[in-house]
Amino acid sequence: MRAEEILRRIGEEKPLVHHLTNYVTVNLVANVTLCTGALPVMAHAVEEVEEMVASASALVINMGTLDPQWIEAMLRAGKEANRRGVPVVFDPVGAGATSFRSRMAHRLLSEVEMAAVCGNAGEIATLAGLEAEVRGVESLSGDAKEAVRGAARALGTTVAATGPTDYVSDGGRVFAVSNGHPLMGRVVGSGCASTAVIGCFAAAGGGDAETIAGALAFFGLAGEAAAPLADGPGTFEPRLLDAIASLAGNPEGLEGRLRVEEVSA
Amino acid sequence: MRAEEILRRIGEEKPLVHHLTNYVTVNLVANVTLCTGALPVMAHAVEEVEEMVASASALVINMGTLDPQWIEAMLRAGKEANRRGVPVVFDPVGAGATSFRSRMAHRLLSEVEMAAVCGNAGEIATLAGLEAEVRGVESLSGDAKEAVRGAARALGTTVAATGPTDYVSDGGRVFAVSNGHPLMGRVVGSGCASTAVIGCFAAAGGGDAETIAGALAFFGLAGEAAAPLADGPGTFEPRLLDAIASLAGNPEGLEGRLRVEEVSA
Amino acid sequence: MRAEEILRRIGEEKPLVHHLTNYVTVNLVANVTLCTGALPVMAHAVEEVEEMVASASALVINMGTLDPQWIEAMLRAGKEANRRGVPVVFDPVGAGATSFRSRMAHRLLSEVEMAAVCGNAGEIATLAGLEAEVRGVESLSGDAKEAVRGAARALGTTVAATGPTDYVSDGGRVFAVSNGHPLMGRVVGSGCASTAVIGCFAAAGGGDAETIAGALAFFGLAGEAAAPLADGPGTFEPRLLDAIASLAGNPEGLEGRLRVEEVSA
Repeated sequence: MRAEEILRRIGEEKPLVHHLTNYVTVNLVANVTLCTGALPVMAHAVEEVEEMVASASALVINMGTLDPQWIEAMLRAGKEANRRGVPVVFDPVGAGATSFRSRMAHRLLSEVEMAAVCGNAGEIATLAGLEAEVRGVESLSGDAKEAVRGAARALGTTVAATGPTDYVSDGGRVFAVSNGHPLMGRVVGSGCASTAVIGCFAAAGGGDAETIAGALAFFGLAGEAAAPLADGPGTFEPRLLDAIASLAGNPEGLEGRLRVEEVSA
Repeated sequence: MRAEEILRRIGEEKPLVHHLTNYVTVNLVANVTLCTGALPVMAHAVEEVEEMVASASALVINMGTLDPQWIEAMLRAGKEANRRGVPVVFDPVGAGATSFRSRMAHRLLSEVEMAAVCGNAGEIATLAGLEAEVRGVESLSGDAKEAVRGAARALGTTVAATGPTDYVSDGGRVFAVSNGHPLMGRVVGSGCASTAVIGCFAAAGGGDAETIAGALAFFGLAGEAAAPLADGPGTFEPRLLDAIASLAGNPEGLEGRLRVEEVSA
Repeated sequence: MRAEEILRRIGEEKPLVHHLTNYVTVNLVANVTLCTGALPVMAHAVEEVEEMVASASALVINMGTLDPQWIEAMLRAGKEANRRGVPVVFDPVGAGATSFRSRMAHRLLSEVEMAAVCGNAGEIATLAGLEAEVRGVESLSGDAKEAVRGAARALGTTVAATGPTDYVSDGGRVFAVSNGHPLMGRVVGSGCASTAVIGCFAAAGGGDAETIAGALAFFGLAGEAAAPLADGPGTFEPRLLDAIASLAGNPEGLEGRLRVEEVSA
């Protein structure tokens, strides 16, 4: 679905997006969700995650600050989401940084069916066992698109690898997204924030590669709109929220400003 | 007590306000407390909550992100606060959203004597078993004031139901508060923040309905002052903190700008 | 090492700084670390802290919101850091406020070798058993420098006691730092943020008193630069991050603006 149409639908339906996320960027994630037009809910108790996700239109699992209690909640929520057809978006933050994280990421991927997996190049590489190839994404090498396509095939889901250019693939088609601004990399949590936007888009449009690419382009465009109003990373973050809210509230004509290119062939 | 006088007292006494709150909005809650003139402390270990609350002038229990370990801390802190006459303010975030939350809210209400309970219309309705009637608060129906009065009687404490108009009642008198700005609803945690302000007011002035209404009016007025300086929800949040600090630091003449109306009859 | 040189080295090496910190100010701490030029990582699971700290150039332990599970993670990470020669910076937030906190601070100090301990006067006093003397730091009494030197000797490490004037000592030399702005005390987490900057400096320059004093002076200077652009504590925080990023990114000529004075004699 086109991003304009998805944003219009989010604004009308105000879907509930359930986040199981980290405590470092949780406030930003919640505000990004609200600014995109959805309703964020953060609930992690194993006693309630299944009931909560049953009311949600998407589940976002972000393993930024993981511990065993949270893994249990993520597994329960993810499985219930699968049973109910609620799309699950997974951000494997720090996969590869410790063996615990890599192991937990693999466990989540094996027990929960993800609608989309979104991470930086290194994280995606670790998960897909494609380190050498996917590293190319960061340097925009010629193999980048093949690497992301390979990761999508290996994981059996839509994969988004973020970087100066984002690549999104479902294992067949590949999209390159070139919206964005360097200041986005200077704010803690911009990766988590982009996954939150993907969660909102998935709530209204599902997890196909074009929808996910549209989410990243929309988020990148908000960064472009915010940057000229900021004097540094500190003032950029509130401006980014303003831009997300402004663009999501008035999606008319947005499509022409999104730089999504299909690079499948 | 009048809001001006309470703010002056907060500024002089710098009361310690102990929060057991959620990790989504905890930073905002702490900053709102500090801007109002009180000293926030966030400590949740069961090993120390009783000793910490013994130094506090108010305890705020916000169940936004609940799990069993926190419930235990909330019960211990609440009971110790009761023993020492420290007013307890309760924000039943998400009551009604899952049965776990509703059950835990009822447990807290049955084991801890609250000086005030503050939530949105749906949460208050769930707790008081008055769903049909209290929903009216959101649409400002004619029955709103009766519903909040009924909730206060059912819960045996001061109740504040927030919305475009806030209603506060002790079961007898009812106050309507019409300060505020729509941008407040577009920032994650504005409900938590209003409860934090109530906690500060309760620390200096106790939990009577007029004091709680004054806290909400003060918070709403800060929102009104902040809104013209913001370009969206992102830039609104820092402006809201500035406005709270500015108004709390110079409460002179504040009273005339607070729109609190007694609607008891 | 001079602050200019340390900042240049941080910018070149982008050292990983591992934080075990509180959930109130964790986002600010992470952003301050990133703005200073280092890479923040927050990981607290006992299953991974040792592996994570092995990749880090400094470990910051901040006990702002403590519970037994975190203590275990702090001890494991701290001991592994000691084994690997990774400097550990400790912020004993709230030491003295409850017996649990004081006990846990003493336990951390006895089991982990700290490169630097940074806190406000009261916290340092509690740890060093020098309450009467160190309180003088807050009022800038004549004994302040002796008290901090005594604390450094008692704890066997570099000690920084923050306040309107910060004092730093290794038990021999004493430095007074007078950069800073009153708005810094009106934002929740400015103490945690200063410890984060110290963590970044320690990652590049170790824990000697001059390096730590340089970190505090740099942080204070950022506050001075940010204050004129702020309208209150809310708008000050993003401006502070901008100023840190701007100064860290262009450290040329910084040295002359740092007000660090050796007051050892």
